[in-house]
Amino acid sequence: MTIRFAILGAGRIGRVHAQAIESNPQAQLVAVADYYEKIANDLIETFGGEFRSIDAIASAKDIDAVLICTPTNTHADLVEKFARAGKAIFCEKPIDLDIDRVVACLKVVEETGTKLMVGFNRRFDPHFVALKAVITSGKIGEIEMINIISRDPGAPPAEYIKVSGGIFKDMTIHDFDMARFPLGEEIETVMASASVLVDPVIGELGDFDSANVILTTASGKQCAISNSRRATYGYDQRIEVHGSLGMVSAQNQREVSIELATADGYLKPPLYDFFMTRYIAAYAAEITAFITSIASDTPATPSGQDGLESLAIAEATLKSIAEGRAVKISEVL
Amino acid sequence: MTIRFAILGAGRIGRVHAQAIESNPQAQLVAVADYYEKIANDLIETFGGEFRSIDAIASAKDIDAVLICTPTNTHADLVEKFARAGKAIFCEKPIDLDIDRVVACLKVVEETGTKLMVGFNRRFDPHFVALKAVITSGKIGEIEMINIISRDPGAPPAEYIKVSGGIFKDMTIHDFDMARFPLGEEIETVMASASVLVDPVIGELGDFDSANVILTTASGKQCAISNSRRATYGYDQRIEVHGSLGMVSAQNQREVSIELATADGYLKPPLYDFFMTRYIAAYAAEITAFITSIASDTPATPSGQDGLESLAIAEATLKSIAEGRAVKISEVL
Amino acid sequence: MTIRFAILGAGRIGRVHAQAIESNPQAQLVAVADYYEKIANDLIETFGGEFRSIDAIASAKDIDAVLICTPTNTHADLVEKFARAGKAIFCEKPIDLDIDRVVACLKVVEETGTKLMVGFNRRFDPHFVALKAVITSGKIGEIEMINIISRDPGAPPAEYIKVSGGIFKDMTIHDFDMARFPLGEEIETVMASASVLVDPVIGELGDFDSANVILTTASGKQCAISNSRRATYGYDQRIEVHGSLGMVSAQNQREVSIELATADGYLKPPLYDFFMTRYIAAYAAEITAFITSIASDTPATPSGQDGLESLAIAEATLKSIAEGRAVKISEVL
Amino acid sequence: MTIRFAILGAGRIGRVHAQAIESNPQAQLVAVADYYEKIANDLIETFGGEFRSIDAIASAKDIDAVLICTPTNTHADLVEKFARAGKAIFCEKPIDLDIDRVVACLKVVEETGTKLMVGFNRRFDPHFVALKAVITSGKIGEIEMINIISRDPGAPPAEYIKVSGGIFKDMTIHDFDMARFPLGEEIETVMASASVLVDPVIGELGDFDSANVILTTASGKQCAISNSRRATYGYDQRIEVHGSLGMVSAQNQREVSIELATADGYLKPPLYDFFMTRYIAAYAAEITAFITSIASDTPATPSGQDGLESLAIAEATLKSIAEGRAVKISEVL
Repeated sequence: MTIRFAILGAGRIGRVHAQAIESNPQAQLVAVADYYEKIANDLIETFGGEFRSIDAIASAKDIDAVLICTPTNTHADLVEKFARAGKAIFCEKPIDLDIDRVVACLKVVEETGTKLMVGFNRRFDPHFVALKAVITSGKIGEIEMINIISRDPGAPPAEYIKVSGGIFKDMTIHDFDMARFPLGEEIETVMASASVLVDPVIGELGDFDSANVILTTASGKQCAISNSRRATYGYDQRIEVHGSLGMVSAQNQREVSIELATADGYLKPPLYDFFMTRYIAAYAAEITAFITSIASDTPATPSGQDGLESLAIAEATLKSIAEGRAVKISEVL
Repeated sequence: MTIRFAILGAGRIGRVHAQAIESNPQAQLVAVADYYEKIANDLIETFGGEFRSIDAIASAKDIDAVLICTPTNTHADLVEKFARAGKAIFCEKPIDLDIDRVVACLKVVEETGTKLMVGFNRRFDPHFVALKAVITSGKIGEIEMINIISRDPGAPPAEYIKVSGGIFKDMTIHDFDMARFPLGEEIETVMASASVLVDPVIGELGDFDSANVILTTASGKQCAISNSRRATYGYDQRIEVHGSLGMVSAQNQREVSIELATADGYLKPPLYDFFMTRYIAAYAAEITAFITSIASDTPATPSGQDGLESLAIAEATLKSIAEGRAVKISEVL
Repeated sequence: MTIRFAILGAGRIGRVHAQAIESNPQAQLVAVADYYEKIANDLIETFGGEFRSIDAIASAKDIDAVLICTPTNTHADLVEKFARAGKAIFCEKPIDLDIDRVVACLKVVEETGTKLMVGFNRRFDPHFVALKAVITSGKIGEIEMINIISRDPGAPPAEYIKVSGGIFKDMTIHDFDMARFPLGEEIETVMASASVLVDPVIGELGDFDSANVILTTASGKQCAISNSRRATYGYDQRIEVHGSLGMVSAQNQREVSIELATADGYLKPPLYDFFMTRYIAAYAAEITAFITSIASDTPATPSGQDGLESLAIAEATLKSIAEGRAVKISEVL
Repeated sequence: MTIRFAILGAGRIGRVHAQAIESNPQAQLVAVADYYEKIANDLIETFGGEFRSIDAIASAKDIDAVLICTPTNTHADLVEKFARAGKAIFCEKPIDLDIDRVVACLKVVEETGTKLMVGFNRRFDPHFVALKAVITSGKIGEIEMINIISRDPGAPPAEYIKVSGGIFKDMTIHDFDMARFPLGEEIETVMASASVLVDPVIGELGDFDSANVILTTASGKQCAISNSRRATYGYDQRIEVHGSLGMVSAQNQREVSIELATADGYLKPPLYDFFMTRYIAAYAAEITAFITSIASDTPATPSGQDGLESLAIAEATLKSIAEGRAVKISEVL
């Protein structure tokens, strides 16, 4: 069985997914849509398929599944359109920046019985997968505390910040998902603190670049997330999970593991400086998982509900900062 | 010039300090006081000096300085007594569990012009001292974020919990001081979350065993502290400071640095499992610093004010947890 | 320009190279030969091309280059055949186990002006490439000492040992090449010691499984190589280069970088346990380099001469062990 | 029971041992001898005792044991003198640079039934002790290979080189002892290679500064030692022991374990740069072991025979280099 794909949005992330489809014997790239036909054709030249319009893809008989890689503000409409068209859907996160819009969209997904997977790629990173496996094995006992430190190499340009939904819906949302990934229990309360230390332009746009968030579950498990839009030494992505019997952590990744010892000391190279090189294996595994879930007709994870939950945590975080108090997820969802 | 010392309280920490005095050529142990004369004599047998009462020490002409190592509830009275007696004072933290009591006590210290040093030993740990030196050198630029993970190997017995003042005034207070140590700016706001995951008895006593605290300064610098009263792998004490140009961290310490590689993987020994072995160098350096500050008549750091500031952060933390909101230090101090 | 390839020998390593050709836009797999047609067809099914005989490939007009992945004892004959047929040749190491045979073969290569590259894949490992770059940058000054520790996860079966040429021509030969890679000076003298500690069958076959070799250059630079056919903790591949200004090292690689801390200590997973997973990036980069050298008509490295030099070191090593003395390379080459 | 000590030679190492005696409740420093009375008095001022001549110490009734810390060329005579005087003897390594002289000296030790301990301090380093304990526990199975990398921070001055006995009797001799420490089997054969790369003056004095040595036991266990008189990054002292079930290693030590991450990468401080700071715990534990062996009347290890064995390996190493062949220990001892 070959699953026939269309990619909607032929930009950077669209190309990453096209590569995954190409190297998967169960999948075939049939069509590519993009607002700019030239960009679609660039992708087609390398990975195959043909240019088609969104509508043509929705009505096509030779398309089983779509990958939505278009700008965020189009996600919810496209998910609804292709849910109604009966296609399996992989949608880059977030489905929308507005909780109500996501809830409405997921209602359509549910009514149409659509298979929907949301692009939280880090769940597929081999290091985080191995970390999760250790937790599942029981080796650290009952989870008590999760500590995530996540820093971007540098702040995005103002143009991006404007449409990003802000640091919590754009960047921390991945950490919220990574907290939920091993927890086995939903977040109940959020407390957060944020400031502008990296770039004043970010503050002028109403956003933050430095933040700490504490998530708490009903049973008292806690997760502390520390974010910065700057890290001179690379893309800093660490997670540790502390439990009653021990602690498991996933370390940072670098391109080469050499060490230079001189009179100055022992020097290791900086970390990966770009999320796409850092998470290259995760992106490939993510699409593979989506293909497998279609081929085997098993549920796709992370689901639309997973996307919604992390968005709600982001919303609660914003409320916590604005009001200087602990905010319950139930207040925003 | 030899500085003549009396030790008040001949327990575990009193002995540690007696060792530091013995090996310092500038210092001499003259007298030891303890509620239990036998315990004082045990210390005297090893390190010298003679048994005397508190009052005898206060009025003695051959005593220049005292080390207060008695139970916490006696600290403030003793500080005042020896301030009035004209002795230099080293007092184990905290001066008192009550902010008003500490403020009153420090007033006496100020009026009498007493040299007072408070026992935040970690400031003297060689690793943390080196970390501070890197920050001072400007190599990480302007501080933006401090992350402290601090976990005890195991929870103390209920008897201790009862008189400890709770996790924040007993354990986290060291982390508050470690946050203030490099910051160069006072904490303005506290947000915190805490729960009981390690031992229900701790909860029954009204205390917590697992906590996360976010401290914020007026300029938006943040410090995230993560605590647990349990760590199966030893005494976990990490701090990292992230700045505009880079990040500096101090790693955990273990007794021996060997590694065993087998089919199971690469195994390093657990960490130190006791604060006294972990901080043995810090304790020695602390008393040396006190002796030097007396000998050279320079200010003693950390001061009584440092003790008060960290106590206020602890108080604000408790208020933040109780009221589920960000609490300003100015509300409690 | 597309370079048209034939693969001779469709086994494990042939498939690895077929993958590299497939993902290289400059290369095309045209033909596959194998003694067992079924094995060739398995490869063809995945990577394309068609089955042809060795002779048909030699006389084909639509083949520019061949990859020789057949058993060692066919290498020299095939190199000569395809040199005379005017094809560019990539040959897995070693060209032959006999120095004279290699010398004769290289004469044909030279006379026919053939581009020949020998498969010392480790030169293309990104970590070793980065190590070499540090040396070239001058950061460690003048090289003085190279230390290589190289241990296989387990001993090969007796059948393999019999045709392998022994540990030095089969396994250590890679380390000899890795020593020559950064040195910039030829090896002059060899001293070695070897024993059978892993598997007595290896000894019965006249081979060794545990060895140490010291290589020396004319200027006194030294390289110490330590080998074992066993390492319970995985595929152990370390190299460090010590110079007048410092030292640079390349660490071992593992599949995932997580760490589990429990009462037993801090445990990291074992290393890669198979050379093909450990060196997956190196194999791909190796074929890319071969394709580039054809496309750009630049010399292919490592060359046939590189293969010969390392073989001579292996021969000298055997002589050193047999005679218990330092052996000059000039005695065997 | 208090053991009464005399220290012969009040230089740097004499002071280190005086400190160990002072802090040991079972030991008392009674007398100090030195060619320069002033140097003896400096030590006495800090650590107590009184100045006496060598002869006075030998005939004294109030001295139980001596620590010989004088220049190497006096060791053998002093060992004999104090053996005949009935004192327990701790002698810094080596007993003599000449094997025959050591053999004769040990005969006197044996005839007089003297307790003699030789100063191979590294056996008492906590990291190496822990490494040995892992081996003894059976966790790595049967030892197959030992790899020692040992580099001095810098070459000693020519004056020292002249009287040192050369790199193998002065520096590598510690590594020979460290190889023998875990082995449980004597060295049978030595192969070595050496050159002058650090300082031509060393070569002019007939010595080497860069060397590799392979030691082999009768059963085929091997130990590879790599030495340099230079290491810009500090005092490099590593040992790893590889066995049938795994490998155990002892890492390098540094004064502080902090790490600075910037755009240049991750930088750790250099290693200890002086053997006395690196091995401070080892020196203290060594004298403690000597005191315990006297107090409990148990054999002192490392013994005079241990000193002789390592000296013989050094002699065989020199012969191997001179003759370019494997040399049996039985040829020199």
